[in-house]
Amino acid sequence: MPFFEDIAVGMRREVGSFTFTAETIKKFAAQFDPQRFHLDEEEGRKSLFGGLAASGWHIGSVCMKLMVTDGQRLAREAAARGEPVAVWGPSPGFRELRWIKPVLAGDTISFASEIESLRTSESRPEWGILQARNTGTNQRGELVFSFLATGFVPRRSPGG
Amino acid sequence: MPFFEDIAVGMRREVGSFTFTAETIKKFAAQFDPQRFHLDEEEGRKSLFGGLAASGWHIGSVCMKLMVTDGQRLAREAAARGEPVAVWGPSPGFRELRWIKPVLAGDTISFASEIESLRTSESRPEWGILQARNTGTNQRGELVFSFLATGFVPRRSPGG
Repeated sequence: MPFFEDIAVGMRREVGSFTFTAETIKKFAAQFDPQRFHLDEEEGRKSLFGGLAASGWHIGSVCMKLMVTDGQRLAREAAARGEPVAVWGPSPGFRELRWIKPVLAGDTISFASEIESLRTSESRPEWGILQARNTGTNQRGELVFSFLATGFVPRRSPGG
Repeated sequence: MPFFEDIAVGMRREVGSFTFTAETIKKFAAQFDPQRFHLDEEEGRKSLFGGLAASGWHIGSVCMKLMVTDGQRLAREAAARGEPVAVWGPSPGFRELRWIKPVLAGDTISFASEIESLRTSESRPEWGILQARNTGTNQRGELVFSFLATGFVPRRSPGG
């Protein structure tokens, strides 16, 4: 993962895509969000979603999975080139999560992360703080999911 | 579930509790958040979390599960009393999600939902819009998780 100094506002990373099959939608819903329109095609069709719809928490969790595994790939590649790898801090949370359009069975969602703001931490000079807009876009190019994440990123030269 | 007219600011509902065992933490992490401190006790102890820590998305998903199942219980009870049951709309999203303290293996988190604001929809008079603060509190009474959810609730007498 990059250090704070390697990151600039506007940088965008495509982290991967996932097809929400009926099977994965129902499996997540049975565990974590057992509402009718997430569990049954016919109930989904009768609902405002218009079809078997993925739980919003499923969409967020899949986005997290792709961001983590893409970050791990980048870290492995940097390590293989002999570069130092930054270890990012845990996220304290996020803002403005929006489920903009339904994600229905068969939809393929591509996730991306774009840097919106960067600042250094006054109380902890070894850390920078970034905000990134994480998004999901379906196979028709429609934005379906968005949230503004906060992250702590180590500085290569604290106070520098 | 209640209708818009049955809800008042400040109403609070305890929706249940869940013990995050090492097994459930690792199972979720392997599927959706494969970071070291969510997968391995020793890596968790070496991390800022200080122990095997639940993924933030796991905490949110468990909160959702408890809110949905508690809502379904209330709806069944109302139906058994012969009362009309309101069907809530899907949530468009939420704001200000915060992971305030780590949730470590063995922690029991109690979730609650408290109404923060209520208003009627101008464009859709059959719906009211609520904001609810959903929280998780650990067995030591410490707030560990919070987000401000938005929901659409049907009105018993639209425009009334």
